Amino acid sequence: MPYTKESLLETHRRIQPYIHRTPVMTSETLNRMAGAELFFKCDNFQKMGAFKMRGAANAILCLSDEARSKGVATHSSGNFAQALALSAKMLGVKAYIVMPSNSPAVKKAAVRDYGGEIIECVPTLQAREDTLQAVVERTGATFLHPYNQEEVILGQGTAALELLEDVTGLDFLLAPVGGGGLIGGTALAARFFSPKTKVMAGEPFGADDAWQSKQAGQLIPQTNPQTIADGLRTSLGDKTFPLIRDFVEKIIRVEEREIIEALRLLMERMKIVAEPSCAVPLAAVLKEKEPFQGKRVGIIISGGNVDLKMLGELFS
Amino acid sequence: MPYTKESLLETHRRIQPYIHRTPVMTSETLNRMAGAELFFKCDNFQKMGAFKMRGAANAILCLSDEARSKGVATHSSGNFAQALALSAKMLGVKAYIVMPSNSPAVKKAAVRDYGGEIIECVPTLQAREDTLQAVVERTGATFLHPYNQEEVILGQGTAALELLEDVTGLDFLLAPVGGGGLIGGTALAARFFSPKTKVMAGEPFGADDAWQSKQAGQLIPQTNPQTIADGLRTSLGDKTFPLIRDFVEKIIRVEEREIIEALRLLMERMKIVAEPSCAVPLAAVLKEKEPFQGKRVGIIISGGNVDLKMLGELFS
Repeated sequence: MPYTKESLLETHRRIQPYIHRTPVMTSETLNRMAGAELFFKCDNFQKMGAFKMRGAANAILCLSDEARSKGVATHSSGNFAQALALSAKMLGVKAYIVMPSNSPAVKKAAVRDYGGEIIECVPTLQAREDTLQAVVERTGATFLHPYNQEEVILGQGTAALELLEDVTGLDFLLAPVGGGGLIGGTALAARFFSPKTKVMAGEPFGADDAWQSKQAGQLIPQTNPQTIADGLRTSLGDKTFPLIRDFVEKIIRVEEREIIEALRLLMERMKIVAEPSCAVPLAAVLKEKEPFQGKRVGIIISGGNVDLKMLGELFS
Repeated sequence: MPYTKESLLETHRRIQPYIHRTPVMTSETLNRMAGAELFFKCDNFQKMGAFKMRGAANAILCLSDEARSKGVATHSSGNFAQALALSAKMLGVKAYIVMPSNSPAVKKAAVRDYGGEIIECVPTLQAREDTLQAVVERTGATFLHPYNQEEVILGQGTAALELLEDVTGLDFLLAPVGGGGLIGGTALAARFFSPKTKVMAGEPFGADDAWQSKQAGQLIPQTNPQTIADGLRTSLGDKTFPLIRDFVEKIIRVEEREIIEALRLLMERMKIVAEPSCAVPLAAVLKEKEPFQGKRVGIIISGGNVDLKMLGELFS
């Protein structure tokens, strides 16, 4: 699927019946702290609680009827697992989800609630890939990648598309970067619909493969990520790296304590439940204040599926 | 100030420049759990984080210029303190807030941030009243009651007014009951603008003075309240009790564990940060399911000013 203005609009039309158009929220207190006008696109209010619903729905909708009849499969410990399970359920498609055995209980329960069939494996990348391969061979299901796939990237780009429709004249647009599906789609949306908007990413210092890859001009895989932002521990893929290399102006890295402080602000000031990953772009804007002074800044709040117990420990 | 359709509309016009029109949110999961269509009026997104902003703004706006020049005063350990401080700041009025010395730090800090002058006292009702009296005598400030005052009750009623404007055909409308300002205003709004809507209140078993008062047909003060719903520990007042006696159909009492479970649902499913008090009406609807089956039910989410550390302990 080509990356064009039309393909992004077509993607949005295709998935619209299966997603929420999420609200844009603002906070006078956070504006004052940042010295900027911040517009938060709240995809924590998305169906199943994260933007991943957009890409998952699009990927299934792009399959042939025959492929759909055999089901879809993925490996994910996080939101893409839930997103694929729910999208598949809504479309009457079987979903096989390979999950590491140490995935949070709340995420496993959610996948099951959405009707996904969980196949557990030991928590290594090799085991995930081997187990997935076996599932695909056994069932004929189509493997859908959590981020390294055009249909998924375009789907994730619809969050920024909606934000750009709802808020005009954004000077900056920020999203977190993990595997790169969200920031990649965001960069495409800005390029097609608001070329003057500069796209930046927030990334934890403890999982800065995107920053390193961009510096080096080549994909450097993530090894041993150390961050509470569990959605951002993955490596970029060969389909997402070029988008970041070419269309993302800058990657701002933040410390763990800055992520926690930004998360506290989202909860205390905006009264929204957000995952640690969501707090990374806000932390970036509050850290590197200078370029954003007096500017209109869009921030994608990527998801709200967080273990309340973990949150409790964070703030205790 | 009389309770009429016109006075409520006038109140809403008066305070509109100083408040947010908060969104109404829904959740398919919670609808399924309740067997009803639930419409949450999210005043946790209100300025300073709670519906109290409405009544506080109205009470100050109804004062004469001379009274305003001498300031306003109240005693409150909670949201009304912040609401009065912020309303006063917006209107260029001095606010004196008597707070018990054991008030949560986050609430004291917020009052100070909003420019309120805090006068601390020992945490007894007698000390609060004596200290307030001394402040009023010293400054000439006007005492504004957190709930037992017509202007405040009408102000709080504007949350329900907005909900009834945004969602038609509600069969039920629920709010928590503490001092009775919110449920009293809610009952007035329903009576004036949607007389077929039945108004009910949720109340913790551990602070059930409203239920007891309604049963007895006379005001029975709250003594020794035991509930995590800190906004609901107060007694009804002589101005709020008659509204509850005459216009509230039923008070549903809930256990502490039911409040915590409902709070978890608001956070996990709706992704909103809410105070324990907010969860009480949802807990009531999930407990006494029968009357609500297949009905359209409005619920006022009263506020989101919660100590994250306390939340953490609740869910750990």
